[in-house]
Amino acid sequence: MADVAVIMGSKSDLASLEGAFKTLEVFGVSREVRVMSAHRTPEAAADFARSAEERGVKVIICAAGMAAHLAGVMAAHTILPVIGIPMASAPFNGLDSLLATVQMPPGIPVATVTCGTSGGKNAALLAVEIMALADPALREKLRAFRAEQTAKVSADDAAVQAQFS
Amino acid sequence: MADVAVIMGSKSDLASLEGAFKTLEVFGVSREVRVMSAHRTPEAAADFARSAEERGVKVIICAAGMAAHLAGVMAAHTILPVIGIPMASAPFNGLDSLLATVQMPPGIPVATVTCGTSGGKNAALLAVEIMALADPALREKLRAFRAEQTAKVSADDAAVQAQFS
Amino acid sequence: MADVAVIMGSKSDLASLEGAFKTLEVFGVSREVRVMSAHRTPEAAADFARSAEERGVKVIICAAGMAAHLAGVMAAHTILPVIGIPMASAPFNGLDSLLATVQMPPGIPVATVTCGTSGGKNAALLAVEIMALADPALREKLRAFRAEQTAKVSADDAAVQAQFS
Amino acid sequence: MADVAVIMGSKSDLASLEGAFKTLEVFGVSREVRVMSAHRTPEAAADFARSAEERGVKVIICAAGMAAHLAGVMAAHTILPVIGIPMASAPFNGLDSLLATVQMPPGIPVATVTCGTSGGKNAALLAVEIMALADPALREKLRAFRAEQTAKVSADDAAVQAQFS
Amino acid sequence: MADVAVIMGSKSDLASLEGAFKTLEVFGVSREVRVMSAHRTPEAAADFARSAEERGVKVIICAAGMAAHLAGVMAAHTILPVIGIPMASAPFNGLDSLLATVQMPPGIPVATVTCGTSGGKNAALLAVEIMALADPALREKLRAFRAEQTAKVSADDAAVQAQFS
Amino acid sequence: MADVAVIMGSKSDLASLEGAFKTLEVFGVSREVRVMSAHRTPEAAADFARSAEERGVKVIICAAGMAAHLAGVMAAHTILPVIGIPMASAPFNGLDSLLATVQMPPGIPVATVTCGTSGGKNAALLAVEIMALADPALREKLRAFRAEQTAKVSADDAAVQAQFS
Amino acid sequence: MADVAVIMGSKSDLASLEGAFKTLEVFGVSREVRVMSAHRTPEAAADFARSAEERGVKVIICAAGMAAHLAGVMAAHTILPVIGIPMASAPFNGLDSLLATVQMPPGIPVATVTCGTSGGKNAALLAVEIMALADPALREKLRAFRAEQTAKVSADDAAVQAQFS
Amino acid sequence: MADVAVIMGSKSDLASLEGAFKTLEVFGVSREVRVMSAHRTPEAAADFARSAEERGVKVIICAAGMAAHLAGVMAAHTILPVIGIPMASAPFNGLDSLLATVQMPPGIPVATVTCGTSGGKNAALLAVEIMALADPALREKLRAFRAEQTAKVSADDAAVQAQFS
Repeated sequence: MADVAVIMGSKSDLASLEGAFKTLEVFGVSREVRVMSAHRTPEAAADFARSAEERGVKVIICAAGMAAHLAGVMAAHTILPVIGIPMASAPFNGLDSLLATVQMPPGIPVATVTCGTSGGKNAALLAVEIMALADPALREKLRAFRAEQTAKVSADDAAVQAQFS
Repeated sequence: MADVAVIMGSKSDLASLEGAFKTLEVFGVSREVRVMSAHRTPEAAADFARSAEERGVKVIICAAGMAAHLAGVMAAHTILPVIGIPMASAPFNGLDSLLATVQMPPGIPVATVTCGTSGGKNAALLAVEIMALADPALREKLRAFRAEQTAKVSADDAAVQAQFS
Repeated sequence: MADVAVIMGSKSDLASLEGAFKTLEVFGVSREVRVMSAHRTPEAAADFARSAEERGVKVIICAAGMAAHLAGVMAAHTILPVIGIPMASAPFNGLDSLLATVQMPPGIPVATVTCGTSGGKNAALLAVEIMALADPALREKLRAFRAEQTAKVSADDAAVQAQFS
Repeated sequence: MADVAVIMGSKSDLASLEGAFKTLEVFGVSREVRVMSAHRTPEAAADFARSAEERGVKVIICAAGMAAHLAGVMAAHTILPVIGIPMASAPFNGLDSLLATVQMPPGIPVATVTCGTSGGKNAALLAVEIMALADPALREKLRAFRAEQTAKVSADDAAVQAQFS
Repeated sequence: MADVAVIMGSKSDLASLEGAFKTLEVFGVSREVRVMSAHRTPEAAADFARSAEERGVKVIICAAGMAAHLAGVMAAHTILPVIGIPMASAPFNGLDSLLATVQMPPGIPVATVTCGTSGGKNAALLAVEIMALADPALREKLRAFRAEQTAKVSADDAAVQAQFS
Repeated sequence: MADVAVIMGSKSDLASLEGAFKTLEVFGVSREVRVMSAHRTPEAAADFARSAEERGVKVIICAAGMAAHLAGVMAAHTILPVIGIPMASAPFNGLDSLLATVQMPPGIPVATVTCGTSGGKNAALLAVEIMALADPALREKLRAFRAEQTAKVSADDAAVQAQFS
Repeated sequence: MADVAVIMGSKSDLASLEGAFKTLEVFGVSREVRVMSAHRTPEAAADFARSAEERGVKVIICAAGMAAHLAGVMAAHTILPVIGIPMASAPFNGLDSLLATVQMPPGIPVATVTCGTSGGKNAALLAVEIMALADPALREKLRAFRAEQTAKVSADDAAVQAQFS
Repeated sequence: MADVAVIMGSKSDLASLEGAFKTLEVFGVSREVRVMSAHRTPEAAADFARSAEERGVKVIICAAGMAAHLAGVMAAHTILPVIGIPMASAPFNGLDSLLATVQMPPGIPVATVTCGTSGGKNAALLAVEIMALADPALREKLRAFRAEQTAKVSADDAAVQAQFS
């Protein structure tokens, strides 16, 4: 029973999702991690999406490259929010996966985040923001995370100021 | 006290948001509609974002074109989920606004939906999906909406089959 | 019992498929025409693809725009050749649908043809070429079609030569 | 006497076609492999295309980069199905070859597959799907191939689930 | 016996070549105008290119859209300079034809000019520049043309200065 | 003796510069308006740039489309700040002029503003900002302009709020 | 009290700004160097921009990648000239940051320079050109810089001529 | 006294022009090689172009990257044919230089060849084709070059056939 499902279209996407896993862990959000392909295991993907709500999943994160249909196919089978991470595979460096993920026709939305390796962290944060609407403790953690993030940039700022003065 | 805030960067975006307003109305979701610009009223935009959570807003939808910073600026000032609709303005037809909306750096996500006029409906549906996580009645409405949508395509299918047989 | 199934993602694609219908008629190839959406009627689409071979369909033509997943979803559920026509919808004029159709991951191919309204005719011709492999009469029709096509350009050539001499 | 002709525009494309050769071998499909250039050996290319049908070729696969005319030129001289693989050469990473391959004018289709190294496997699979229409044994092999492919993703899924639980 | 051959891939390109015809006429350069297609009349195109030198043609101008192979195919069959005009057809507005015309592999060059309707005039001027190398009278005409062109902009400049002072 | 020189590459760009002229007028900044072409009147353009500083010009604004070299050529001949407005001409809608204007090699900068008709107003505002560094009255006008601009968006905001409540 | 403020969105941009620092040093222009993020430290960024004029800053240079909002956000809070350097981060190699920086809506300009590592030097030179309007000594330095730059290319020219003769 | 002038915008382009130098040598065509910059040595570039015809130059080849104005600036000052090679520099991999080279306004053409390192060879071949119009010996060399080129591909073809049979 996990709150967030992280699905990747291919096991080779695992490394690029490091940021997602780490971020979910920071927030103490339970997740299950799966490999399912819109094209190679379409039944498994549809079954997963259809049963996700019932199984207690709150947000589905999908990472796929090329003609990235995974998030769209998932979204077609569930009313849960689906977040899509366009993976940046060769040769088009993610322009294909970005457009294939975000340009959903009216009626079935996919919440698309940053293309490429930065997308994992942002997908996880968006999932946390969504869940935090009903979870005051998570809101506090988000506020703390933001404060820490701001502090880190401020520290960098101070270091650079020192270096250049 | 509205659940969803729909912010546009310019009053001229109003017509393109028709789908968003109509969809929120179908679901009986309360919304406030605002014009705020990341560049021309940056203080108002930041103030709005900072106070949104406190005022009971659950999801913020931002529509902007060109170097579309509105959603990103809003997201920087709130931990609420922010949905970005890239408006498709001339001359780059939305490639600029799509990239400016979706390519957020790690740490501040924007949930980007379909670029252009189809984005309004999908932004509203995504907001509803997010709110439905804590609202069983809304879930039922979503299921009914999906069923009706499926039925409409099926009816089109039947009509076309008849026409071509 | 039709040899070719022409599936469109939305009834609004009907006009753009005129070239496909006309070409199939010229060759006397039977077709069924359907409206099915990878996102709005995913079960119907999957069911259709799964049963197509059994029902005698030989080639499936799919036309879709935006994040055009229809051909890919169909291809995932059948071993029949699937031809994809990327429709050129606003605002990206088909760059999105071209990439979403053609950039299939290894393992599930989609035979992608010309993006936009020219694609319908080419999809139909490709389907005829495929069926002609086992149908000598169709081969003769293709040869005649090509000869006529060549003759038409030659006639244009003669007319233009006359005009400019 | 080969069923499938694999033509590359330059000998340097050989390595990128590994997936095509391997896939054809898996299915026991006979193939001949040629180097012919739309620009440097145009007569040889045209002669090959004109005589291919007579010589028993069923499907022609063409791989070319840059202003990739090979598939189009081949298609102009034969009524056999021609599959184009856009090779992803520098500096445009295949955008040039994709557009030059897929955007055929109405009348002469090219069945375009995934751009880049993934294209070889998909071209071969598409050729097999086409030939399988008249070859029940090949259909069975395709079904087995798909099942194995699905099983491989499922195994990856199981491994990842184990790793993350 | 014409010095310049202007070939278009489709009779529908005629209007877009108005600038080419007019410019050649201004310089008193003889031209023949033909419709030939790399795909629909490949033999005619190859024959034309092969015999052009012998027939006294000095420069070949080719205008084509989409997967614009005409100039490349012509260039493959002649050692005469071939100028390519990428026509700007829907939906990709000439990005496809520009890349398909200019990205010729090493060994067979195409002299590509401005994409779209401005290309016709520039193709004709380039042809005149090439022929002027061996024709002093044509050089004088070019100098006069340039002077007149400069004068026209200067006159516009004077008019605008007057309007704004 | 004007503070700002507005140069356009072609008289046809005049209408697109309306925003520039109007904005300069609002700020009471003197301007001269010229038509000069990097390609058709290169000497005039170079002469203008070389003598501009001496003649009291402070900022040069250049508007050009296609392979927009005007701003770059001007910048090569002066140490005054040169602002480039990429005009959005067919068929590439300004992608060509944006890249040709902004991608200046290290050593000769061009201050590039918004591509298309919005660029005129922003070029003029940037020129005013630059001149305001040495002109306190102009700074006050800029502050007033900004305040008015903010007020206009706030008024739109109020109107839209009223409409939707 | 520095004349030029160089702000980067992330400390990791430091190396790419080498050219900017070096160029400002060559001209003896004082600068402060800061790390501030439009998204992670939005308050600091806005505060900095609002107080910059008062603190004596004359020109603000902002370097940011991806959905590069930094320059736009700064420009929204100051009437000082703001120069934007689009950093070329993966996977879109700066197309995202270029469009997000340059496509500012009418009313708030950003002076955008070359995308990528060449941008730093050009941003600094543009800042110097702007300040030189009120600083005759800086004008002389600019003229000397240009002369030296020209001499360097001329020396390269001489070396290459020698090598090839 | 050289027939072909090869101009590069920066000495760093030297290596990328290897193919041009080698090809001109193969044909025994005399060439001078220069480094001149449209932006850093604009006077030298204009002077060169203005005097080239008089000095006996027949064709000018220009190689430049980024906002590649060199060929256009040269063409503005001469009636000789100017060939442009768009160099493929980071971060846009030549899309900028291709558009800046080819999209010349009507009136001043640039004969643009393949973008990137393949462009050097094609620029040289195009220059040879142009000069061969008035030089029968050069025509023979071109025919021999083509025959050899064809033979090389045929040899590759034979080798690959052998390898795969």
